[in-house]
Amino acid sequence: MEHNNQTQTISTHSPFTQPIRCIVKLGGAAITCKNELEMINEETLQKVSEQLRQAMITSSEKPPGMDWSKRPGSSEICCNPEEFGDQSVVDFSRFIVVHGAGSFGHFQASKSSVHKGQLNKPLVKAGFVATRISVTTLTLEIIRALAREGIPSVGMSPFSSGWFTRERQVSSADISSVAKAIDSGFTPVLHGDAVLDEILGCTILSGDVIISHLAAYSKPEYVVFLTDVYGVYDRPPTEPDAILLKEIAVSEDGSWSVVKPKLQNSIELTVAAHDTTGGMQTKISEAAMIAKLGIDVYIVKAATSHSLRALTGELRGNIPDDWLGTVVRSSR
Amino acid sequence: MEHNNQTQTISTHSPFTQPIRCIVKLGGAAITCKNELEMINEETLQKVSEQLRQAMITSSEKPPGMDWSKRPGSSEICCNPEEFGDQSVVDFSRFIVVHGAGSFGHFQASKSSVHKGQLNKPLVKAGFVATRISVTTLTLEIIRALAREGIPSVGMSPFSSGWFTRERQVSSADISSVAKAIDSGFTPVLHGDAVLDEILGCTILSGDVIISHLAAYSKPEYVVFLTDVYGVYDRPPTEPDAILLKEIAVSEDGSWSVVKPKLQNSIELTVAAHDTTGGMQTKISEAAMIAKLGIDVYIVKAATSHSLRALTGELRGNIPDDWLGTVVRSSR
Repeated sequence: MEHNNQTQTISTHSPFTQPIRCIVKLGGAAITCKNELEMINEETLQKVSEQLRQAMITSSEKPPGMDWSKRPGSSEICCNPEEFGDQSVVDFSRFIVVHGAGSFGHFQASKSSVHKGQLNKPLVKAGFVATRISVTTLTLEIIRALAREGIPSVGMSPFSSGWFTRERQVSSADISSVAKAIDSGFTPVLHGDAVLDEILGCTILSGDVIISHLAAYSKPEYVVFLTDVYGVYDRPPTEPDAILLKEIAVSEDGSWSVVKPKLQNSIELTVAAHDTTGGMQTKISEAAMIAKLGIDVYIVKAATSHSLRALTGELRGNIPDDWLGTVVRSSR
Repeated sequence: MEHNNQTQTISTHSPFTQPIRCIVKLGGAAITCKNELEMINEETLQKVSEQLRQAMITSSEKPPGMDWSKRPGSSEICCNPEEFGDQSVVDFSRFIVVHGAGSFGHFQASKSSVHKGQLNKPLVKAGFVATRISVTTLTLEIIRALAREGIPSVGMSPFSSGWFTRERQVSSADISSVAKAIDSGFTPVLHGDAVLDEILGCTILSGDVIISHLAAYSKPEYVVFLTDVYGVYDRPPTEPDAILLKEIAVSEDGSWSVVKPKLQNSIELTVAAHDTTGGMQTKISEAAMIAKLGIDVYIVKAATSHSLRALTGELRGNIPDDWLGTVVRSSR
């Protein structure tokens, strides 16, 4: 796979002064309504935000909200300064949130083939602008949902944060700004985005590639992919006999095999045809790349008791039998 | 003024490969409804976007829109790929747009005193998040309004684009990403924002300070400040005898004087008390700093025939007598 070369040459110099606890991917399919253009799955997003808050702070009490925007139909802004008191800030653990596009951005990107480059074509240039408008609309709503839970979320849109590619591989990224935001106590929110490509002119940088890159620099304790199915299956999960792959081991050369359950037949993987940034095959490849670094990756259904267990980190070491999800880890 | 030192030490090395034609400030007071929280002045914003498009392309024909988002109440996305044809892209002149916050962000920032720093206080941290949510909501709407006119606008939010301050002075900024966006044919949109400060923890970086900094690096042919009044007056413009200052000359030491009209009395300046990032006094100081670099600055009422003349650059050299606005230029 092309991506290997790039990851192998990543320097070990990291701008992160302290370890990152977790990088979480909010899958586009989980937080948006896949079959309805530009529609957020509010219920899942709210639950995901709540679980993130529970995973990030030890206190069971919800801290005051940080989205002081005017609510539709209201002329007032909800903010009560007295709620905040004078004590020092709640200590949130160091998380990075990356989200996919789901029903935002994909339409605009595929209609104009932004991922193929050629910015000199009027349609591609317009599609680039339109894609960014759509994905930044989504990211703003996600930041607001997290902020309402009291999570100090700040947007760091890749296009504007110095992420550039060279033939679709990340060629530069301003990781130090992400590190500074975390050191200042914030939770950075990144997302799949249209970016400039040094050779192609432009392309689509997927959330999964962003996570691989961030994981290589920040070496988080674990990575969680929140999706709309229980994990990785041996065939499309809509098929009646689909088997959930509970553990995948990644060897040093990046190849992977299913450890649990013991399977007789070879694996056929789910690849969602509509996903311009790659489906489950890409996800496993990216997860394997992260696992190779010695970082456990949990692929789990969003907004379930299983995702909460993955987010809190209680799965490290031992995976309970009643946990539904896929763990991808190094075979070492 | 404190800011002088910083501007004087700016290196002349510029990442811009070709000259920038114009930096435009969309004043918060002009594009939002000052007295209503988080309310855009849609009519002015639409007119400003139209004038920008007229100033940026020579063709009188409006290019196809680039905001393909779903409209409220519709399940479809407006985009007709055939509109774009196969010819090469329309050549937009190299503009940078910077906007203020108006009734977005100011409430959140002042309620929590983000400009004073102290991120270890829960209220300040929450206010930082809330301010960014509010100003990025506004910037998204401005980007969409520009895109609807066919302007290839892309957001580059200062917090996420490597803008940091040190005791409120810009200490670093990723200008090269702005230059790359322009070289790729886009119109970057920046805005006043909450940013990290190396000494204070955080502060508010105003749109006017961003413009000074960008002007020093990009040396635009001219700078336009679009406001809600006709220009700079000798006293609050609501007073019956207020006189519009048509020309201000800036000497090499940065001091300035009114050249036109000839005035008898000393100048009392309009300072809007609610403006946390400084009112007209800040604006003149920042304008003077830009003028010192040999760049003409036009301060003019948005969405008028006068603003269109300023944006197209027809005022360079000779200011017609019937033009209403304030020009700030070097006395050399």
